[in-house]
Amino acid sequence: MKLIILQDIIKKGLSLVERATLKSTSFPVLNNILLKGEKNFLSLTATNLEIAIMWWALAKVELEGNIIIPSYVFSSFVGSLPNKPIKLSLEETQLEVQSGSYKTLIKGQPSEEFPIIPEVNEEEFVLVESRPFCQSLSQVVSFAAPSTTKPEISGICFSFQKNLIKMVATDSFRLGEKKYFIDLPNLSKEHTLILPQKTAKELINIFAEEEGELKIYLSPNQIVFEKLMEETKHPKIRLISRLIEGEYPNYEAIIPKKYETQVVVDKSELLNQIKTASLFGGKTNTVKLKINPSKNQVEIFSQTADIGSYYSFLPAKIKGGEIEISFNHRFLVDGLANIKSAEVIFELNKETGPGVLKPVGQEDYLYIAMPMKTD
Amino acid sequence: MKLIILQDIIKKGLSLVERATLKSTSFPVLNNILLKGEKNFLSLTATNLEIAIMWWALAKVELEGNIIIPSYVFSSFVGSLPNKPIKLSLEETQLEVQSGSYKTLIKGQPSEEFPIIPEVNEEEFVLVESRPFCQSLSQVVSFAAPSTTKPEISGICFSFQKNLIKMVATDSFRLGEKKYFIDLPNLSKEHTLILPQKTAKELINIFAEEEGELKIYLSPNQIVFEKLMEETKHPKIRLISRLIEGEYPNYEAIIPKKYETQVVVDKSELLNQIKTASLFGGKTNTVKLKINPSKNQVEIFSQTADIGSYYSFLPAKIKGGEIEISFNHRFLVDGLANIKSAEVIFELNKETGPGVLKPVGQEDYLYIAMPMKTD
Repeated sequence: MKLIILQDIIKKGLSLVERATLKSTSFPVLNNILLKGEKNFLSLTATNLEIAIMWWALAKVELEGNIIIPSYVFSSFVGSLPNKPIKLSLEETQLEVQSGSYKTLIKGQPSEEFPIIPEVNEEEFVLVESRPFCQSLSQVVSFAAPSTTKPEISGICFSFQKNLIKMVATDSFRLGEKKYFIDLPNLSKEHTLILPQKTAKELINIFAEEEGELKIYLSPNQIVFEKLMEETKHPKIRLISRLIEGEYPNYEAIIPKKYETQVVVDKSELLNQIKTASLFGGKTNTVKLKINPSKNQVEIFSQTADIGSYYSFLPAKIKGGEIEISFNHRFLVDGLANIKSAEVIFELNKETGPGVLKPVGQEDYLYIAMPMKTD
Repeated sequence: MKLIILQDIIKKGLSLVERATLKSTSFPVLNNILLKGEKNFLSLTATNLEIAIMWWALAKVELEGNIIIPSYVFSSFVGSLPNKPIKLSLEETQLEVQSGSYKTLIKGQPSEEFPIIPEVNEEEFVLVESRPFCQSLSQVVSFAAPSTTKPEISGICFSFQKNLIKMVATDSFRLGEKKYFIDLPNLSKEHTLILPQKTAKELINIFAEEEGELKIYLSPNQIVFEKLMEETKHPKIRLISRLIEGEYPNYEAIIPKKYETQVVVDKSELLNQIKTASLFGGKTNTVKLKINPSKNQVEIFSQTADIGSYYSFLPAKIKGGEIEISFNHRFLVDGLANIKSAEVIFELNKETGPGVLKPVGQEDYLYIAMPMKTD
């Protein structure tokens, strides 16, 4: 391998792929990056065996070749170089990195030692817009629960349909459902799959700020997210992930079909008052809400014996009867924080039934929280 | 106590004094803040027994009084209120905090439980400019070494003289000396004292961004830093600290009086090359410098068996002979990072003698680093 690439370009690639590296004493090669000079591209690859990230850029390749290099040293060294051309060349199993008055030799390994990255199955794919897709995912991603006993709910359930992508996550105490409406004309059938939460977070990290199309390849055990270079239509970034096996719980059954009391309030004000009340919520994180139709207000209470007591209120539009109900403040805060409208709809059924939060004027989001048992 | 104060004002005071609170199971009152409504001021006080921070602000005091309140709950609650007037009033040993639609009762303790804050001895004091004083201190503060066997060097040595304040800190491997030139006409004699490093850091945190004069009261066992309110000349912020007992080492003896080789180089470039070389410095953090008069350049080397090798160079003006010398890269980086000039003077004596770093064109700063023994 012998090639020249600009520091600023390879730096971006390194900061991207090194997210997939893993410090592992039993499998130390995972803490490395695979460099390939091929045709007129440099490619970087890293994997932790659950996900793999691949990145390509145009480079002046004088001699093809490849090597595995420790991620931290290479990426830190490149990061501290000035933004000038960098010459990469192989000296047996060492990589010579030269730029201006800097020259290093970094010890590597032959590329055969690197784990095999699965090929992309190109049979079934959909095209989405990168930003709104990631934006939608970010509204539910945090609700999944790392769980070894119930691996199904440790991921986000995706349902790809002809005119929408549904994303659902739950930890069995609360649940978020997002509908991203988009036409998927080349979908042959409905696909349901469970994406590991870590992959979903990386997906957002990598693609949320990228403009343009994201190509998603669907296959039974694996999913691939791919962004192409604008000029060459060659792949630019590829995220490959395994999927979680198993059946996602039938959550639709727990979504209440009606309500006894419905409240419409300012979202930011409710969020701020619940956060503030949480200071007095004690170890159980309990905040109590009183929906008070006679005063047209929501009242918020909390107290702990050794700290003190809290009270606040905010104006509300209320349909239905008075109700007092307690929640873990985190469940309400997490739900409200993911609602994008200025006002929020809060629907309740008795003291023990789930509470439903929805944005006002949008039919694409739903958050359900179980109340706390008080007596 | 019954008083009214604006949220924005008391919030600033709380974020300031809560730095001195301490979570202590044996002395839980240290995690509290003393509130006093007196004349037309609200004052806040916190202490960890090593330092105390006091803060005052004008308030509409309807009834004088005082109480001790848990720092975290009070400060977090006030912080989440809107910027409107807050009413504070006592209900026996509870503090009622009311603002707009919020009302809480926070459990407190009678103020007699609070540690006694020492009175200010007003006999001897000096006036300095807050910003340059803190700026000077920040150039040496990090070099002191938390040490139980040598408590003297766990602080910063201050020498107050008629026309300057000298600040020195060392951990016995490197040393920084800063001279802050200022006329101190009302000083009766030279004062030398050792300020705990933690106090010095708080001093910078509190006063570095404050414009105007800082009053320093000097007494044998205690030091007080005080800032007055502009309008009323009443104290606004007071930081009180104990001093470290003992004699500061006679460091002047180790400052080399001459040099064999003197180098003048670009500071940022040298700093960047040494930082980069440190990636290859291994567990001993060793970087080797070769001062090469025949090429008019400084060359930098480092290597570790399992990682690889590093080389870089930068142009230099050199007086004297060739020398190769190794340092712990951290010692050079720390010294260079505290030099404010664009170019730096580096003076060396043999492979085993201390290296001296100085700014070009300024006679007020000196940094000494001991080299590493190699072979």
